[in-house]
Amino acid sequence: MNSKKPLILVVNDDGINAPGIQALISFVKSFGELIVVAPDKPQSGMGHAITMNKPLRLNKVSSIHGLESYSCSGTPVDCIKFGTKVLAKNREIDLVVSGINHGLNSSINVIYSGTMSAAVEGALEGVPSVGFSLDNHSFDADFSACENIVQTVVKFLLDKPKEKRYCLNVNIPNVPKEELNGIKICRQAKAYWDERFVERKDPFGESYYWLTGDFVYLDRGEDTDIWALKNQYVSVVPTKSDLTDYKSITTLRDAYEFV
Amino acid sequence: MNSKKPLILVVNDDGINAPGIQALISFVKSFGELIVVAPDKPQSGMGHAITMNKPLRLNKVSSIHGLESYSCSGTPVDCIKFGTKVLAKNREIDLVVSGINHGLNSSINVIYSGTMSAAVEGALEGVPSVGFSLDNHSFDADFSACENIVQTVVKFLLDKPKEKRYCLNVNIPNVPKEELNGIKICRQAKAYWDERFVERKDPFGESYYWLTGDFVYLDRGEDTDIWALKNQYVSVVPTKSDLTDYKSITTLRDAYEFV
Repeated sequence: MNSKKPLILVVNDDGINAPGIQALISFVKSFGELIVVAPDKPQSGMGHAITMNKPLRLNKVSSIHGLESYSCSGTPVDCIKFGTKVLAKNREIDLVVSGINHGLNSSINVIYSGTMSAAVEGALEGVPSVGFSLDNHSFDADFSACENIVQTVVKFLLDKPKEKRYCLNVNIPNVPKEELNGIKICRQAKAYWDERFVERKDPFGESYYWLTGDFVYLDRGEDTDIWALKNQYVSVVPTKSDLTDYKSITTLRDAYEFV
Repeated sequence: MNSKKPLILVVNDDGINAPGIQALISFVKSFGELIVVAPDKPQSGMGHAITMNKPLRLNKVSSIHGLESYSCSGTPVDCIKFGTKVLAKNREIDLVVSGINHGLNSSINVIYSGTMSAAVEGALEGVPSVGFSLDNHSFDADFSACENIVQTVVKFLLDKPKEKRYCLNVNIPNVPKEELNGIKICRQAKAYWDERFVERKDPFGESYYWLTGDFVYLDRGEDTDIWALKNQYVSVVPTKSDLTDYKSITTLRDAYEFV
């Protein structure tokens, strides 16, 4: 670790008032100086959305664990931009920590997840980044088993040379810490959501719809995040923002239509 | 191509009233039966956002090119779900076409892009999918040079065995069609947005912020989408939803902290 105190940006997608970000702050505050900025309302499922068509507000909120903290009217990715471009006041951020999300972001959930999109945005700006998620959707989730995991991963990232720029998706089973089997480095399991719409009628007889669905798990590999979580391991998936499907480049180059 | 008439889902992120989706409909309607559903307002930059915290509305709109068309109160990804789960009425969709976007979605823009997130969502549901974008942000953009490109790519995807499930990011230079040099299969160029916030004061003296920025191009490769576009080629990048950074898995497995 550098002799300079690290500057750590803390964000989430459940909003500034979620217990998960408060737990995260308490676990990382001994590692450096914190900048805290989170959405002013829950922003789950916002993916990599940014706010382009309307202006944004940034408001100071009552301190969390004695720290100056901000809420932002935008998305988790907007929060990263406010943190690095406004609140850092021209200093370089050493680490982005996002979460702790109330609910898993394993497998394909990574692309819908505001928590992980914030971490990916941090990595795009050249900052080592990590998103933490606990397998418990409840507001009153008990985050205590996450403390040791969060601190191990944060210490690892702060100790790395900055060129590494890891972006890690860390998911934590919802079990007491003595039942955790350890940490596994994994790949993202293949899966998708099989959605349905629940149709209801408003008092005026017009339809409205709630999006709901089932998670369909397609992958029997034992090197995936879902396998790790089922076996009470913490899953760590290194994540990137290059969506190129390199395998298909060759087959497409052979297609006569494109030459 | 099958003897059955293909069922094609048409979406976009600029909204149901954008000229780009009208151009797309006119270029693909001869290929099969179309289902048209698009956001009821511009949804650029929405990435892979889905609507979880509020109900959605789906409204019939005046026909576009004589087709039954719908607007949706949600995101581009929500539109895919309405198309496949509600409007398809239990029939299988053969192809998703998204766009034509007013403005490029090359390089890192793919992760912010509603146009491409809709295509990625189509692919997740097992449907061959493609997003088209023209290098012209204007409402009055001239899409005529796109016709041949759109039809070539659509024919290619409809002719493929369905297991292929290509998800293609097609970006088109804004030049007359006789100046196009052809189609290039590419990888996503490395780049990022260096953002700034423009701070203004409202009539009550409170700050609000507009997100703006410069595109920073980090990649001198001649196999990228940005290189192709600069050289007046149409770029085609095969795209996927597995964000695992496989190269980092090995180095992380060697880290003593995680064993």
